[in-house]
Amino acid sequence: MEFRLAELAERLGGELIGDPDLQIRGVAGIKEAQAGEITFLGNPRYGEWLAKTHASAVILPREHPFNGRACIRVAEPYEAFRSAMELFHRERNPIPPGIHPSAVLGSAAQIGIDVAIGPHVIIGDRTQIGDHTVLFPGVVIGADVIVGSRCLVYPNVVIREEVEIGDRVILHAGAVIGDDGFGFLTKGHAHEKMPQLGRVVIEDDVDIGANTCIDRATTGATVIRQGTRIDNLVQVAHNVRVGRNSILCAQVGIAGSTHLGDRVTLGGQVGIIGHIELGDDVMVGAQGGVTKSVPAGGQVSGYPATSHGLAKRMYAALRQLPELLKEVRRLKKRVADMEEKEGDRR
Amino acid sequence: MEFRLAELAERLGGELIGDPDLQIRGVAGIKEAQAGEITFLGNPRYGEWLAKTHASAVILPREHPFNGRACIRVAEPYEAFRSAMELFHRERNPIPPGIHPSAVLGSAAQIGIDVAIGPHVIIGDRTQIGDHTVLFPGVVIGADVIVGSRCLVYPNVVIREEVEIGDRVILHAGAVIGDDGFGFLTKGHAHEKMPQLGRVVIEDDVDIGANTCIDRATTGATVIRQGTRIDNLVQVAHNVRVGRNSILCAQVGIAGSTHLGDRVTLGGQVGIIGHIELGDDVMVGAQGGVTKSVPAGGQVSGYPATSHGLAKRMYAALRQLPELLKEVRRLKKRVADMEEKEGDRR
Amino acid sequence: MEFRLAELAERLGGELIGDPDLQIRGVAGIKEAQAGEITFLGNPRYGEWLAKTHASAVILPREHPFNGRACIRVAEPYEAFRSAMELFHRERNPIPPGIHPSAVLGSAAQIGIDVAIGPHVIIGDRTQIGDHTVLFPGVVIGADVIVGSRCLVYPNVVIREEVEIGDRVILHAGAVIGDDGFGFLTKGHAHEKMPQLGRVVIEDDVDIGANTCIDRATTGATVIRQGTRIDNLVQVAHNVRVGRNSILCAQVGIAGSTHLGDRVTLGGQVGIIGHIELGDDVMVGAQGGVTKSVPAGGQVSGYPATSHGLAKRMYAALRQLPELLKEVRRLKKRVADMEEKEGDRR
Repeated sequence: MEFRLAELAERLGGELIGDPDLQIRGVAGIKEAQAGEITFLGNPRYGEWLAKTHASAVILPREHPFNGRACIRVAEPYEAFRSAMELFHRERNPIPPGIHPSAVLGSAAQIGIDVAIGPHVIIGDRTQIGDHTVLFPGVVIGADVIVGSRCLVYPNVVIREEVEIGDRVILHAGAVIGDDGFGFLTKGHAHEKMPQLGRVVIEDDVDIGANTCIDRATTGATVIRQGTRIDNLVQVAHNVRVGRNSILCAQVGIAGSTHLGDRVTLGGQVGIIGHIELGDDVMVGAQGGVTKSVPAGGQVSGYPATSHGLAKRMYAALRQLPELLKEVRRLKKRVADMEEKEGDRR
Repeated sequence: MEFRLAELAERLGGELIGDPDLQIRGVAGIKEAQAGEITFLGNPRYGEWLAKTHASAVILPREHPFNGRACIRVAEPYEAFRSAMELFHRERNPIPPGIHPSAVLGSAAQIGIDVAIGPHVIIGDRTQIGDHTVLFPGVVIGADVIVGSRCLVYPNVVIREEVEIGDRVILHAGAVIGDDGFGFLTKGHAHEKMPQLGRVVIEDDVDIGANTCIDRATTGATVIRQGTRIDNLVQVAHNVRVGRNSILCAQVGIAGSTHLGDRVTLGGQVGIIGHIELGDDVMVGAQGGVTKSVPAGGQVSGYPATSHGLAKRMYAALRQLPELLKEVRRLKKRVADMEEKEGDRR
Repeated sequence: MEFRLAELAERLGGELIGDPDLQIRGVAGIKEAQAGEITFLGNPRYGEWLAKTHASAVILPREHPFNGRACIRVAEPYEAFRSAMELFHRERNPIPPGIHPSAVLGSAAQIGIDVAIGPHVIIGDRTQIGDHTVLFPGVVIGADVIVGSRCLVYPNVVIREEVEIGDRVILHAGAVIGDDGFGFLTKGHAHEKMPQLGRVVIEDDVDIGANTCIDRATTGATVIRQGTRIDNLVQVAHNVRVGRNSILCAQVGIAGSTHLGDRVTLGGQVGIIGHIELGDDVMVGAQGGVTKSVPAGGQVSGYPATSHGLAKRMYAALRQLPELLKEVRRLKKRVADMEEKEGDRR
C-alpha cells in the first residue's frame, strides 16, 4: 500500500511542504527510515537527525524550521505519526471473515456478524463471539464464555469457561484467561485444592500480553477494568481487581485479592502481595516489591517498596555504606582515645 | 444445580438452623454473596459482615451466636465451605469421555478407560494415558510419555517425549513439561548445545500452573514430588528436585541442579541459584534471591536472602540510612571540634 | 541404540582401556549412571565417585590414573561426553519428513526439502520454511515469515507475520515471536495503541526458550544476533537488539529499545530498563536491576545494579546496618557525655 504525500497530509490534517506526488510506502523511526518512508521529529533532541535521516518526508511540529526536505507540519507530530502508522497498518488484514472448516464449534455457540475464525480454533458450548471479532488459529475457548465485538484473539490463546470479555479487547498469543486461582486448604501436610468457582471479567478496550495469565476468582470475579493495558508474562491472581486505564508492564505479579485503582502504573517485574489496595494513580517503579497498601497518588519503589524519594536516597546511601562502616570504626577509636585521655586527666 | 439447605447441612455434617427447604444455587465470599447463595464466616474479624451479607445462608462455627439468618453450624467452617464448593463444582463436566475425531494418536498409544480427549489433541507413539484422565483441546504430548489416571491436562499444554506423570496431576493451560534444559559448552565464543537426554518425573497429586516450564534433565530426571503445588509462570530448570507437599508461588525461578526438601514454601518471584540445597520446611519470602544452601526449617528473605528476622531489621534500618549518613557526618565534626580543643589545652 | 565401547572410543578420538565389546546403551552423570551407561569425570572434585559410580565405563582425562574400570581417556572429557550425548541423542527422531494432512498451508507458502510438518500446524500465506526444518504439532506461523533451514520449532510456538528466522534456530514450546510491542500514546487518561509495524529478526544458531516472548518492533526490527541463547519465560521488548553469542537466563526482562552487545550474560530474573546500552561482554548478576548503560566488560549486580565488587560489599555491609545504627546511637551518647564534661570544665 502506498500513499501520495498530498493524501497523507490531508489525512493527517497537516500543512504539506514539498512534492505532493511523492509516493510514501511506509513509516519508520528517524534513525532507521529509508527512502520512500515518512518519519517524524517529536523530540527536538533528535533535531540533528533531520539532516541525516534517509526518509523521503518528515512530520514536523508547526513552528519547526523548514529544512528543504518534504514535510508535513502538524500541531502534534507524535500523534500524527501514530495516525500515519494506522493508515499503513490497516492494510494488513489477518484472516478473512468466515469459519475455517477445521474449527470446532460447541452446541449453541453464537457467532456474530463478520467474525473470522481461523484453523483449529475450538469454541465451547453456548459461547458467544461478538461481531467483527477475529480468532486466530489454535485459540481454545471454553463453554459459556462471552467475547465482545471487534476483539483480536491471537494464536493459541486459552480462554477457560464462563469468562466474560468486552469489546475491542486484544489478547496476545499464548495468554491464558480464567485458569484456576492458586488456593489450597492445608490439612496436616497436604494442600487440598480449593475449587475455583469464580470468573474473570475483562472490560472494553483492554490489552492482555503474550503468555500472560489472569486467574479466575475463587468465588465472584477477577476484574480488569476498561482501558487497562497489560504486557507479556504478567501474573494476575484470583480475585484481583485492576481499575481503569492502568498500565502493567512485563513480568508483573499481583497476588490474590489485591485491588488496584484507576490509572495505576506498575513497572516491569513489580511484585505485589495479596489482600492490599493501591489507590488511583499509584506508580510503582520497576522491580519494586509492594508489601503494604499505597494511598492514591503514591509513588513507590524498591524492596520493600517505599516512597520513591526515600527509596532513591536509600539506594544512593547504600553505596556509601561500606565506607560508612569503616568511618564509624575510626570514629569509635577517636572517641575511645579521647575518653582515655579524659580519664587520665582525672 | 441447586441444593436444599437441609441436604447441604447433611452433606457438610453440620447443624441446620432455619428453613430446610431453602434452595441454594451457589457459594460465594461473605462480601460478594447474593440471594440464593451460601457463604461462610471463617475469621471472626469479618463478624460485622454477618449482618450485611446478601447471602441466604451462612456456614458458622459451632460456638458462634445465632443471628436470625439461616445457617449451618460446623466445627470447621472453612473446610465445610470447601466441601460446599466441591458439591457445586462437580457439576461442571468439562468434556465427555471419548476421543474427538480431530485428535491424532501415535502408533501403539495406550488410552485408559473413560479418558476424554478433546479436539486437536496430539499424542505421540507408545504414550500411555491413564483411566479417567481429561486432555483438553490443543494438548500436545510427545512419544513414550506416561500420564497417570484422573489427571486434568488443560488446553495447549505441551508434554515432551519420555516425561512421566503420576495420578491426579493437574497441568494448567500453556504449561510446558520436559523442554530442553539450558545447557551449553562454551568453545571460544560459541555456546554449543549440550543435548538434554534426561526426563521429567512428576509424582501424584501435583499441580503445575499456567505457562509454567519444567525443564527435562541433562541426564537423569528433573523431579517434582508428590503433593507439590506450583503456580503460574514458574521456571524449574534441569535436574532440579522439588520435595513433597511444597508450594511454589507464581513467577518463581529455580536454577539447575538445585534440590528442595519437603514442605518448602517459595513466595512469588523468588529466585534460587543452581547447585544448592534447601532443606525441609524452608520458607523464602516473596522476591527473595537465594544464593546459598538453607538448612531445614530456615526462613529467609531479601537479596541476597538472609534469615527473615535479620532481613526485616536490615530493611527497616535501610530506611534510616540516609539520616544516619548525615548524623555520622555531624558526629565527626563534633569529635573533631573536641579533639581540637583537647589539642589547644596541651 | 547401543554402541560397542571400541566404537565409542573411536568416535570420541580417545584411548580405550578395557573390554572393546562392552555394549553401552546410554550416558549419565557420575552419580546417577547405571550399568550399561557411560559417564565422565570432568571435575577432579568428583574423583571419589569413580569408585562408587554404577556406570560400566568412564570418560577420563588423559593423565588420570586408571582405576580398573573400562574407560576412554581423552584430552577434554566434558567435550567428549557432549559428543557421546549427541551420538545417543541423534537416534531420537521426532517426526518424519512430510506434511501431516491436518496441517493447513497458506497460499504460496514455500516448503523446503525434507521438512517435517506435524499435525495441526498452520502456515501463513507466502511463508517460507527452509530445508530439513521440523515444525512440531500445533505450531502457528503467520504470513510472510521466513524460517531458515535445520530449525526445530517445538509444539505450540507462535510466529507472527513478517518475522525472519535464520538457520539452525531452536524455538522451544510455547514461545511467541513477533507479538505486538507494548506501545501507547496517552491522551487524557486513555492509552491509545501505537500500531506495531516492525519485525523480529532472529539470526542463525539462536535458541529461544519455552514460553519466551520476543516482541516485534514499532518500526524497524527487534534483533537477536547469531549464536545467542535465551532461556524460558524471558521478555524481550520492541526494538531491543541483543548481540552475538549472548546468554539470557530464565525470566529476564529487557524493556524497549535497549541494545546489548556481543557475549553479554544476564543472570536469571534480571531486569533492564529501556533505551540504554550494555556493551560487549557485560555480565549482570541474577535478579539485578539495570537502570543505566554499562560500558563493555562491566560486571554489575543488585538493585539498582552497581559494579559487582561494590554490590558485594554493599550487601555484606547491609547485614551489619542494624548493629551500626545502635553503635552510632551509643557513640552519640558518649560524645554528648564528653561534651558535657568539657562544658563543665570551662
